[in-house]
Amino acid sequence: MEKVVFFDIDDTLLDTSTFAESARKSAIQLMVDNGLPISFDEAYTLLKEIIGQKGSNYDKHFDVLTKKVLGKEDPMLIALGMITYHNVKFALLRPFSKTTEILIYLKSKGYRLAVISNGLTIKQCEKLVRLNLHNFFDEIITSEEVGFEKPNKYIFEEALKRMNCTAENSIMIGNKFETDCIGATNVKMPSILIGRKITPEKAQRIKDEKLDIKVIENIEQLNKLL
Amino acid sequence: MEKVVFFDIDDTLLDTSTFAESARKSAIQLMVDNGLPISFDEAYTLLKEIIGQKGSNYDKHFDVLTKKVLGKEDPMLIALGMITYHNVKFALLRPFSKTTEILIYLKSKGYRLAVISNGLTIKQCEKLVRLNLHNFFDEIITSEEVGFEKPNKYIFEEALKRMNCTAENSIMIGNKFETDCIGATNVKMPSILIGRKITPEKAQRIKDEKLDIKVIENIEQLNKLL
Repeated sequence: MEKVVFFDIDDTLLDTSTFAESARKSAIQLMVDNGLPISFDEAYTLLKEIIGQKGSNYDKHFDVLTKKVLGKEDPMLIALGMITYHNVKFALLRPFSKTTEILIYLKSKGYRLAVISNGLTIKQCEKLVRLNLHNFFDEIITSEEVGFEKPNKYIFEEALKRMNCTAENSIMIGNKFETDCIGATNVKMPSILIGRKITPEKAQRIKDEKLDIKVIENIEQLNKLL
Repeated sequence: MEKVVFFDIDDTLLDTSTFAESARKSAIQLMVDNGLPISFDEAYTLLKEIIGQKGSNYDKHFDVLTKKVLGKEDPMLIALGMITYHNVKFALLRPFSKTTEILIYLKSKGYRLAVISNGLTIKQCEKLVRLNLHNFFDEIITSEEVGFEKPNKYIFEEALKRMNCTAENSIMIGNKFETDCIGATNVKMPSILIGRKITPEKAQRIKDEKLDIKVIENIEQLNKLL
């Protein structure tokens, strides 16, 4: 049976954090320029607080922002913020420079590929479709669909079931130590952490508990391990 | 040595004709709605004439259109036409539904891939980059760069040289009988024509001249031949 490689999406296949931050800053700047009566720094700090409270998938951040600042919602400013956020986000949405090459490489090696992602199904599919990456993956498993988020073992078990494979015959690739790698470990699946900064504590934990977790600096280095 | 598959771009990997037509119609409709003093049908017919005369890569079709209708150029209407054309074009730009799957399949079979396209280099690269297809191809050979258009044999010879392969070890895939297939035949390269309608005359010619040209209905069927 061909081996299966499971991928996380955000900050693993593409640079979600950077584009979301740029999009939010652009939106806030235009809202301030168009009458939101606080400074850019105040408004951006407030927005980050709102996102922290409501979560990044909440769809009314700008509504709450105008209400907090003005005492009531301002539809024009909300619309301006939303449009700017989406326009900038879509303008910046790109895979990491080596993502597609690596996916082609893995397919050429005979691996089957799938996604395990914490997030909303349509939103995650939208990213893959916009980047024309969706054809690489046989299954997209999201926490919204399964009802459990990584690192919960149920989402990994569902993924193994859907791909009809065993944990030892598969591997998880992600950028988050707990979510992706410890999550995979929960079902005895090996994993690869993509990230420059692994703390000494985590490195020690991998060693002490003999966890099957390898660490690489960027997605391009996957071709050395797979 | 791995075999090489050369692809045409427009109407082979993606549906250029349909999206260009929709984009032009949308542009003309908005120009008429905003004061161009002729009917939609008249304006669209005139635009098609201008494109026929100037070629599709000419970048001042709307300038000529307003000058012909109004006696002088109208910058606002030209800008409206251009913006609408580009917005609709980018909104509609997609590969054929099976294109990416087939490219993944060919890479998984070990083929090397390249493009041979009649067109402007940046414009053709832009389509591939927007669709995130560029990583599949080792070389993009354009007529602008080589100085000769398909079916001229020099563009095919340059392509073989750049990919360091022989004609018998490669194959051309395209949607135009003369341009892509007879062009390939000029350097003794086999080819596959993608298209539902091959005329009886062409079918007869393939038979009579024993040309190494196969015909399939859509790009998905490539997996039966390669």
